[in-house]
Amino acid sequence: MTERPETPLLDTVNIPADLRRLQPKQLRQLADELRAETISAVGTTGGHLGSGLGVVELTVAIHYVFNTPDDRLVWDVGHQCYPHKILTGRRDRIRTLRMGGGLSGFTKRAESEYDPFGAAHSSTSISAGLGFAIANKLSGAPGKAIAVIGDGSMSAGMAYEAMNNASEAGNRLIVILNDNDMSIAPPVGGLSHYLARLVSSGKYLSVRHLAQRFARKLPGPLHRAARRAEEYTRGMVTGGTLFEELGFYYVGPVDGHDLDSLIPILENVRDADLGPMLVHVVTKKGKGYAPAEAAADKYHGVQKFDVISGEQVKAPAGPPSYTNVFAQALIAEAERDDKIVAITAAMPSGTGLDKFAGRFPDRMFDVGIAEQHAVTFAAGLAAQGHKPFVAIYSTFLQRAYDQVVHDVAIQNLPVRFAMDRAGLVGADGCTHAGSFDLAYLCTLPNMVVMAAADEAELTHMVHTMALHDSGPSAVRYPRGNGTGVAIPEVPQRLEIGKGRIVREGKKVAILSLGTRLEEALKAADTLEGKGLSTTVADLRFAKPLDEDLIRKLLSTHEVAVTIEEAAIGGFGAHVLTLASDAGLTDAGLKIRTMRLPDLFQDQDKPEKQYEEAGLDAAAIVDTVLKALRHNSTGIAEVRA
Amino acid sequence: MTERPETPLLDTVNIPADLRRLQPKQLRQLADELRAETISAVGTTGGHLGSGLGVVELTVAIHYVFNTPDDRLVWDVGHQCYPHKILTGRRDRIRTLRMGGGLSGFTKRAESEYDPFGAAHSSTSISAGLGFAIANKLSGAPGKAIAVIGDGSMSAGMAYEAMNNASEAGNRLIVILNDNDMSIAPPVGGLSHYLARLVSSGKYLSVRHLAQRFARKLPGPLHRAARRAEEYTRGMVTGGTLFEELGFYYVGPVDGHDLDSLIPILENVRDADLGPMLVHVVTKKGKGYAPAEAAADKYHGVQKFDVISGEQVKAPAGPPSYTNVFAQALIAEAERDDKIVAITAAMPSGTGLDKFAGRFPDRMFDVGIAEQHAVTFAAGLAAQGHKPFVAIYSTFLQRAYDQVVHDVAIQNLPVRFAMDRAGLVGADGCTHAGSFDLAYLCTLPNMVVMAAADEAELTHMVHTMALHDSGPSAVRYPRGNGTGVAIPEVPQRLEIGKGRIVREGKKVAILSLGTRLEEALKAADTLEGKGLSTTVADLRFAKPLDEDLIRKLLSTHEVAVTIEEAAIGGFGAHVLTLASDAGLTDAGLKIRTMRLPDLFQDQDKPEKQYEEAGLDAAAIVDTVLKALRHNSTGIAEVRA
Repeated sequence: MTERPETPLLDTVNIPADLRRLQPKQLRQLADELRAETISAVGTTGGHLGSGLGVVELTVAIHYVFNTPDDRLVWDVGHQCYPHKILTGRRDRIRTLRMGGGLSGFTKRAESEYDPFGAAHSSTSISAGLGFAIANKLSGAPGKAIAVIGDGSMSAGMAYEAMNNASEAGNRLIVILNDNDMSIAPPVGGLSHYLARLVSSGKYLSVRHLAQRFARKLPGPLHRAARRAEEYTRGMVTGGTLFEELGFYYVGPVDGHDLDSLIPILENVRDADLGPMLVHVVTKKGKGYAPAEAAADKYHGVQKFDVISGEQVKAPAGPPSYTNVFAQALIAEAERDDKIVAITAAMPSGTGLDKFAGRFPDRMFDVGIAEQHAVTFAAGLAAQGHKPFVAIYSTFLQRAYDQVVHDVAIQNLPVRFAMDRAGLVGADGCTHAGSFDLAYLCTLPNMVVMAAADEAELTHMVHTMALHDSGPSAVRYPRGNGTGVAIPEVPQRLEIGKGRIVREGKKVAILSLGTRLEEALKAADTLEGKGLSTTVADLRFAKPLDEDLIRKLLSTHEVAVTIEEAAIGGFGAHVLTLASDAGLTDAGLKIRTMRLPDLFQDQDKPEKQYEEAGLDAAAIVDTVLKALRHNSTGIAEVRA
Repeated sequence: MTERPETPLLDTVNIPADLRRLQPKQLRQLADELRAETISAVGTTGGHLGSGLGVVELTVAIHYVFNTPDDRLVWDVGHQCYPHKILTGRRDRIRTLRMGGGLSGFTKRAESEYDPFGAAHSSTSISAGLGFAIANKLSGAPGKAIAVIGDGSMSAGMAYEAMNNASEAGNRLIVILNDNDMSIAPPVGGLSHYLARLVSSGKYLSVRHLAQRFARKLPGPLHRAARRAEEYTRGMVTGGTLFEELGFYYVGPVDGHDLDSLIPILENVRDADLGPMLVHVVTKKGKGYAPAEAAADKYHGVQKFDVISGEQVKAPAGPPSYTNVFAQALIAEAERDDKIVAITAAMPSGTGLDKFAGRFPDRMFDVGIAEQHAVTFAAGLAAQGHKPFVAIYSTFLQRAYDQVVHDVAIQNLPVRFAMDRAGLVGADGCTHAGSFDLAYLCTLPNMVVMAAADEAELTHMVHTMALHDSGPSAVRYPRGNGTGVAIPEVPQRLEIGKGRIVREGKKVAILSLGTRLEEALKAADTLEGKGLSTTVADLRFAKPLDEDLIRKLLSTHEVAVTIEEAAIGGFGAHVLTLASDAGLTDAGLKIRTMRLPDLFQDQDKPEKQYEEAGLDAAAIVDTVLKALRHNSTGIAEVRA
């Protein structure tokens, strides 16, 4: 698709050991070639571009200075790891990024010994790095741990928890704060302002300054005195006290694109014996590629694009995304009710709340990467009479599970959860799949849990949540576009815990929750063609269940199948529990529950993932036919 | 039990409005009486003592200065709220603390309008306070929000996430950092050292200093200039820059037992317009009661005690606690394998890891109240070849759910989770119950999840986990003492996913997981007396299930009952899923799942809680008999 760049020097580097044989003066050229190769690869595959371009020089410098893979390099989130993958033996597969069977878009332990810790969710790198460092300390192994973490990721509590514990690692832990003043959206909060002050307050640290500041080569007592004096002054000159108060030795800010500073500074950091180090590196997201530099947030994740023009391949026009449908529905509710407010954890665009903020700038709160705070903040707003909608991807709501339990469900506060990207997510793979929300939410008393079968349903459900003031509620909806149904101008208020029959039949009942309804209807057509009259119900609510409807369907059909785009323990398990509570299995009940398989599914095209999961129409038909063929003789044999 | 103290002034104060009618010079006496009453009440009921005694003056001062309940006071954790309850209309019930039907040991919304936000887990108060503050900002309401948070709670990431977002609240948010250098155990980490430096670096803030520092009464431009000058110098004098960098105006340190300082300082803080304020108050845990002052950690939570001697009523001698059995078992494993390390999040004594640390000081890590970091740190240790046991109460592991999913389960790293206090917890009530772990862990691929039926089983399971290197594993065990069985000198390695038959019968099968095994055996006796031959199996593993054993039991008995001390979606739901997957329900299957009810159970004596939950022997018998009586006619009627 895109012409390959000329990369004569990069062609000689397969692994970091090759890189470490180069002369320092060759590294500039290597970085340029690495940048060109990254742009070319992402132009072919799509994926995360800006983050990787911002750390090209840093990637080269780290692998040049440190002894990877024995020194453990942990990239936070992993968005930025494509240049790292190119330098660590994976260049031959770099144009398979995010494809089925290809390289992951994140770091992944199974892929390479140069990825000692996988990622995808943010802010785990310092904790993991500390684990490596302490393990080495206990074993007497020499390796260091290097965590590279963005300023946005620093807003999450777990990064702070890890920093608060770093001192035990001594000089085995090096944190590189990659400050590009941008996570996915512009960052928010006190820390971000603090970093901006650090950067604006002085010049970048140069090698000359560095020499003045590192007193480590002085002998014994003189060293200590010099160090004290140095400690006294450095905070005054360059700041960094916040990190120093937590026990780090702060070095920076450093220009992250200037290899002539970066290499000697990292060498000094590597060799220093001043406890855990924090190197504050300033980079530009999208660096070196004009279209990405100009719009770093737009180029965070990209479609395939033309390298010359930067133009992204447009997805074919189609129904609106669920994200947009949610945003429009919430805006409509907020027009009617001024108590409605919206909260995002650093994903205004991913959740659609940027549109809400455009209409109601004072009623949208972006709290940064801080899901825990987001949920309890919402609980506080609800306790004071507001109606908060917390829009978080299903997978990221896991970060706030205790807050959902302890601050929302136990107190029965009407916080509304909009769980985007519920179910399988295609190219982002298992770390981003929203597979567990039904199990982890439906087990909680007081929760109302809905799943939208299409964009009209989502609109009804947002409306229903807006009016549901007696306790918490949640709606899950998938990544991608809607089914194309008309979106109602006037949404309905759904009765809590009531499903609907979409198609009436007699012999087979398909109890669908959420996204698989279209497939259930397709399966019903096929079954009908085989003479099996099929009912399809959309249960709408995973909690509370529509007990009347379920009892009726199970009692009046020969076989029943539940289907959900979620892991075991959710909707199907609750239906079975209801059935056995009610004694419906006593006299015989052919029921099967279809769900995500009990494994972490790798990235692939959505339709491939559904096929692998056994959640498409063909699989439904197969499950029904097998159940019908299964007879009590089989059981009798087992009993004998 | 204990003689009531004389409290003439306190007797005139029912609610804070009464308090606010007193003269400032009367407050010292009031505080003394409040302290005496607190000691007397806890002497009668048992409960959290040291925390409350430490904040007697602070409680008086806050209610005196602020307009509660319209100003929203949020006590972090809520351990320290007994004096607050006495002053807010609940003195008449203060000797029912933590009893069935009595006052909660924590703050609770349902109890009083003076408890605007309930708590029990730590570090939620700033987020909740920010919710109140922002709601008031949006509504134009005048109320302020005051969050009182201990230095230990400040180590949790969500407190930092909230601080990072505080600036939006303006002067509506006041955080009072209650620094007693002690959460439950002595605190750890960089922040704790930082606070110690702040306190040791200067004198307490006095009213005279305060006058110099608050420039707010100066008019316009002069005010601003003075403020700038003041901002420039105050960090130099008293520190607090860490909080100031995050956007707070820092005031302190203040002697938290000196009402003559506390009252005017809080009044100034209340009236200042300098953005969100952080008041650093230094208190002594257990203040004013010699036995508690002398051993603050021992007096964190107490049994009933004699007020004069401080002697606690001893629990009758009995079998060792599960906590101790776990600790001894882990020490034994660690003697055999030097790769075993242990991690606690600020609960060395609660988890028994203090004993482990006594034996292996270099191999135990107390990371502070930082469950998220604890789990990912453990994942890092595991990725580097160590064998980490993370000992966390079941309810607190909810704080690290995403880390369990993303860093442990997806990467299939052999982190071991020891989940203490799984199931009901008696006097601590619903916030501390470990009800959801089976649902939220068993839904995850790669997890091995065990539950110990007695202390011998726990010993086997710890051994099994120590040897299980191919992925993560977890064991749950309850609060309180074991059953009294002999603890094996040589533990067995259990086969993963295999249960055991404890008693053989023919007609009824009880499939027990974990703690309810004794009740299951009692029920079997009763059923046997009614001519119903009963099998009792201890499944041991909630994941993977023992498919062979379950199929056999379900196929060869007339009725089967599962029982677990956990909420819906766990063991029973997985058994039903297995049964329906296998077609075992097709020809008729009498199966019932017994589990915790779908509500948050209030505090009570354990046996009362089990009765309410329907998880005792009588309930098992009842369930079996009802299932046996249930016939297909009932079903047929529904079907018709």
